[in-house]
Amino acid sequence: MIKVIILGSGNVGTHLFKAFKNNIDIEITQWFSRDLKNINQYSDVVKITDELNELEVADVYILAINDDSINELSSKLPFTNRLVCHTSGSKSINELDSKNRQAIFYPLQTFSKDSEIDFTKIPLCLESFSSKDMNLLKNIATTLNCDYYEISSVQREKLHLAAVFVNNFTNHLFTIAKEITDESNIDFNILKPLISETVQKIYKLDPKEAQTGPAVRNDKETINKHIQDLKSNDHKQLYKLMTSLINNLDHEKL
Amino acid sequence: MIKVIILGSGNVGTHLFKAFKNNIDIEITQWFSRDLKNINQYSDVVKITDELNELEVADVYILAINDDSINELSSKLPFTNRLVCHTSGSKSINELDSKNRQAIFYPLQTFSKDSEIDFTKIPLCLESFSSKDMNLLKNIATTLNCDYYEISSVQREKLHLAAVFVNNFTNHLFTIAKEITDESNIDFNILKPLISETVQKIYKLDPKEAQTGPAVRNDKETINKHIQDLKSNDHKQLYKLMTSLINNLDHEKL
Repeated sequence: MIKVIILGSGNVGTHLFKAFKNNIDIEITQWFSRDLKNINQYSDVVKITDELNELEVADVYILAINDDSINELSSKLPFTNRLVCHTSGSKSINELDSKNRQAIFYPLQTFSKDSEIDFTKIPLCLESFSSKDMNLLKNIATTLNCDYYEISSVQREKLHLAAVFVNNFTNHLFTIAKEITDESNIDFNILKPLISETVQKIYKLDPKEAQTGPAVRNDKETINKHIQDLKSNDHKQLYKLMTSLINNLDHEKL
Repeated sequence: MIKVIILGSGNVGTHLFKAFKNNIDIEITQWFSRDLKNINQYSDVVKITDELNELEVADVYILAINDDSINELSSKLPFTNRLVCHTSGSKSINELDSKNRQAIFYPLQTFSKDSEIDFTKIPLCLESFSSKDMNLLKNIATTLNCDYYEISSVQREKLHLAAVFVNNFTNHLFTIAKEITDESNIDFNILKPLISETVQKIYKLDPKEAQTGPAVRNDKETINKHIQDLKSNDHKQLYKLMTSLINNLDHEKL
């Protein structure tokens, strides 16, 4: 039985709690939140606390808190030489105070508090300074049935950058598409099967090989019509830049 | 029984043939290709021809050909007043010669010749100048079990533009992400569950509501680190532009 204490009650903390609580190999020793009202509803099934001094002994302390609070909270922990990890995509392992054994337990997924997530589908990026600690993290990943990868802090920064492209920027392209369809009284739902197929293709093909469309064909008539059709100058600029990147053109010439 | 003649043997023509050939309500009267060797392998199950003069009588002629050939081929058809439609996302209904009854049968999907597609998941955008012709197109859509939408040529141009954003540009974001992970020896597969979840969210939330990430949080430290980490100036510019669009900022100031 692995004893885990979760610190933080945001999206990641809450999803970790739900994933751990029905797992027979894991005991959630405590759940810490600065604000108890966030987790009061779970007080029947887990010991909750808002006092760092009340933290009990556990095999691992998982800090699922704001990036900017990691350093401060990890320094305030009233113990040393225990395994403490954070769950951030962008912060180095050294953001954690070195008085404890530092590690990373980063679930690479986009979390919303309200939406259910199948935790087994989330890849975990793990990092630690000792093979013993790494083994404990791998055991947790295995018991959750998750894929896991050993990823250094330098790699994790690059991975987070790549994640911004595939998640945040992709989602904004969907937002722009919805603006375009809304303006013309077209049901945005028409586009959803195309969006799903766009993603399905990455499971079969390298995205570079899967590229289609007017940019890759260098279909200037369509490209120019599209640029004209866009209302916002920023969207025109984005269209030109993406088209030039796809076609390896100098976009200033479009 | 609806009699259909397909003209064209590219991705769309081939997928239409496969969708029609097992359909008990549709008879593929003929399949035309300028180059018979593209469709010779199907000559056991369908009459094939490369001669417009040999085209038989059918209820509808579907031109699944290059955008730029629609006008010329439709003028060369050796008959008048029959129902002729094209399958292009970007060309107007008037691209078809008006000696026949013009219509549109546009499957909004990204086709690769080799990948199997469940045609029932493809929304069909239909347009015609008479309700009788529209009803025939709707009957075909219904017999294929497809969702269909009446979309004017003006709307279809906007829809095609929106499709470029959600399909072509999104796929290029995946390409950039793979470049970033490849450079750091990170397995691109780590990102696939995140990509799938990004898309799943549009079935539950308006994409604007689903937006997350450093741009929407205006997390300047992460944003600046990411811009530094990108190697190509075009990618830096794209990052700045997307970030400013997400955050409604003036991207020149980033």
